[in-house]
Amino acid sequence: MQIAKDAKNASIAMAKLSSKGKDGALTAIANAIRANAAKIIKANEMDLTKAKADDISDVLYKRLKFDEAKIAEVCAGIESLIALGDPIGEALSKTELDDGFILEQVRCPIGVLGIVFESRPDALVQISALALKSSNAVLLKGGSEARNTNRVLAEIIYEAGVGAGVPDGWLGLLEDRSDVAAMLSMSDYIDLIIPRGSNEFVKYIMDNTNISVMGHADGICHVFIDKDADEAMAVDVAFDSKCQYPAVCNAMETLLVHKDIAAEVLPDLAAKLAEADVEIRGDENVRGVIDCGLANEEDWRTEYNDFILAIKIVNSLEDAISHINKYGSGHTDAIVTGDESAANRFMQLVDSADVFWNCSTRFADGFRFGLGAEVGVSTGKIHARGPVGLEGLTIYKWKLIGNGQTVAMYSGKQGRKYKHRKLR
Amino acid sequence: MQIAKDAKNASIAMAKLSSKGKDGALTAIANAIRANAAKIIKANEMDLTKAKADDISDVLYKRLKFDEAKIAEVCAGIESLIALGDPIGEALSKTELDDGFILEQVRCPIGVLGIVFESRPDALVQISALALKSSNAVLLKGGSEARNTNRVLAEIIYEAGVGAGVPDGWLGLLEDRSDVAAMLSMSDYIDLIIPRGSNEFVKYIMDNTNISVMGHADGICHVFIDKDADEAMAVDVAFDSKCQYPAVCNAMETLLVHKDIAAEVLPDLAAKLAEADVEIRGDENVRGVIDCGLANEEDWRTEYNDFILAIKIVNSLEDAISHINKYGSGHTDAIVTGDESAANRFMQLVDSADVFWNCSTRFADGFRFGLGAEVGVSTGKIHARGPVGLEGLTIYKWKLIGNGQTVAMYSGKQGRKYKHRKLR
Repeated sequence: MQIAKDAKNASIAMAKLSSKGKDGALTAIANAIRANAAKIIKANEMDLTKAKADDISDVLYKRLKFDEAKIAEVCAGIESLIALGDPIGEALSKTELDDGFILEQVRCPIGVLGIVFESRPDALVQISALALKSSNAVLLKGGSEARNTNRVLAEIIYEAGVGAGVPDGWLGLLEDRSDVAAMLSMSDYIDLIIPRGSNEFVKYIMDNTNISVMGHADGICHVFIDKDADEAMAVDVAFDSKCQYPAVCNAMETLLVHKDIAAEVLPDLAAKLAEADVEIRGDENVRGVIDCGLANEEDWRTEYNDFILAIKIVNSLEDAISHINKYGSGHTDAIVTGDESAANRFMQLVDSADVFWNCSTRFADGFRFGLGAEVGVSTGKIHARGPVGLEGLTIYKWKLIGNGQTVAMYSGKQGRKYKHRKLR
Repeated sequence: MQIAKDAKNASIAMAKLSSKGKDGALTAIANAIRANAAKIIKANEMDLTKAKADDISDVLYKRLKFDEAKIAEVCAGIESLIALGDPIGEALSKTELDDGFILEQVRCPIGVLGIVFESRPDALVQISALALKSSNAVLLKGGSEARNTNRVLAEIIYEAGVGAGVPDGWLGLLEDRSDVAAMLSMSDYIDLIIPRGSNEFVKYIMDNTNISVMGHADGICHVFIDKDADEAMAVDVAFDSKCQYPAVCNAMETLLVHKDIAAEVLPDLAAKLAEADVEIRGDENVRGVIDCGLANEEDWRTEYNDFILAIKIVNSLEDAISHINKYGSGHTDAIVTGDESAANRFMQLVDSADVFWNCSTRFADGFRFGLGAEVGVSTGKIHARGPVGLEGLTIYKWKLIGNGQTVAMYSGKQGRKYKHRKLR
């Protein structure tokens, strides 16, 4: 696939882009998008017309739509990215191996990112901009419903970037489903695949490539109300975790309640959840306290992404931790408690990317965390975990600077000794 | 596979081991190995007898042999590991999202490591100790030639660890080849696979699992002698890179020489290499300067691990960089030059884990880098790159500590604003 070879070549040259050069290119891209708004909207209307003919759902239609407001939004997104620091070039550590013999661990781009994303044209803009800011080349495969919009956007972004000094081949658009399969086998050219989309899709990608994959599979988040919780706080945190925006991966799916506090807290919480029309499915013990449907084993494993909540009463902090480690997805889990040692135990032993104390699971988000930009949320345990910012698109290389040193000089009984002075 | 489930359970409990507890367990392990030396050597003798009957090579036999001297060596290794700092618990960043609302990014263990290693019993000891120091559970599969030694060692290490408070199940030994295939499919229980062994073996592992793999595939390292190199330094660095220990992955396989300096530097270097009986294979231009065999395309891609060196004359720094990025393995590449801007360009554009200026490729090593312990060398571009120390066996989790915050409080026009004060 020539487009992937071109991206690999471009990725080498991208390592020498300056911060100023990259920010200049991002400005050029935002300007080009604004200048070509009419053309973009026209292309999007073709996609929308086809989508209507194909009778796609309202939700998908809304995501697909790319109008003046969306254009203003993505350009504002690019501008806030410009304002962020350059993730590349930072010295992560620096050691003097011997007098004047300096080892530096320097942050650098990964190389070529392969990104497969859903039918949201704004994702194309956002991802291209993140790749450029982190000096990575990028191959993009968007949803086929957005084909016309993606093609116009990719062309505008690519040309504006090249015009501002970004190397030829830095961005490639894949259009066919068969291109995804081809991409998965190109471990010589692609360094990291980031799939966005359904759980099944992410799993399919992981099962069909030996390239590293950064993606999250599920968001089965929990709140645990401990016996020492402030009851009003517990109700607020649980309500926010479930209802503030239930369609997303950081919303709570299962509530665990300590048996000693269940009778006090559950009726108040149930009343509040009822106002938001939340369907409750509880275990038998929960049904002894409030009126609700019966939860089965399957409920503990389900990401509803909806106004449905599973509730279980547990006997102890340890039972809560075990339940979460067994049924959770390693995304985000919170404890509400006034007991600091219980909170610390929870945060230490729950094996999730985000472990929260006395606050809503909905805070698990790159912008709320102050990362500036969010590449995605990783539930893997390698490279990056939880909300991933620009740093997640970087790795490091080791630079060793000497003046003729050989290992022979440091070998044997008469050999020089390493000093290993930490400079950073 | 029960052993893997047990390791997963143990991995949760290992997160709460204290630094002191881990170092105490490592001391107990070193003591137990010393106390059981006779038993270990007896088991090893069984393996050695079988190996002799099977007529294995002298090199393998030497690796397999585990005597008093090797025992003293691995125990000294454990003691130097005890002296290192605990990689777990460090706050990588700390941000105040709002007054008293604190986000901490804390280094933590990965979970369960699956390690497949060659027939060297000392590797079993070293890996178990590294896993314990980084609070990871570990599944080990060693070479079948060392079956008896491995079994005795694993039992001694496991029991000494458990006796000192490490959770049950923290170490599991796999003995059959079929166990490896089973391991590769257990993404629910194993978080990272580290294969050690031949390139083909590492590639086989990568192609047959969707678990993350940290391993290096090849070590095709280069030295480039630039036109502005000090000639004596160039000869020394090239000689050391090739000859100091040619059987390892950080030894030079191909030497690139700038055309403007080839006639001066190559005869001296060839004379020195001849003293070490190095076979030279050069391109036609090299053969115009010194007497040697002819290198073909295949030589540029070959890791000899032997006293053989391919040499090519290049027209420019750019050609050297292109050759390395095309034929290299992303391991370690060095430039010898007096020109700082050429050196910086080389280090920026050569896409390898280690990029060196005026020193031998043989420095690419965890101990020489001052990492204290070496888990392996990664030529991947995700998670860890180059020599990997204890930190490569860790990841982080995000702890968010509040007092009842909900996302609703921060939403809408009247909502509170995030402060995102960087505390670390």
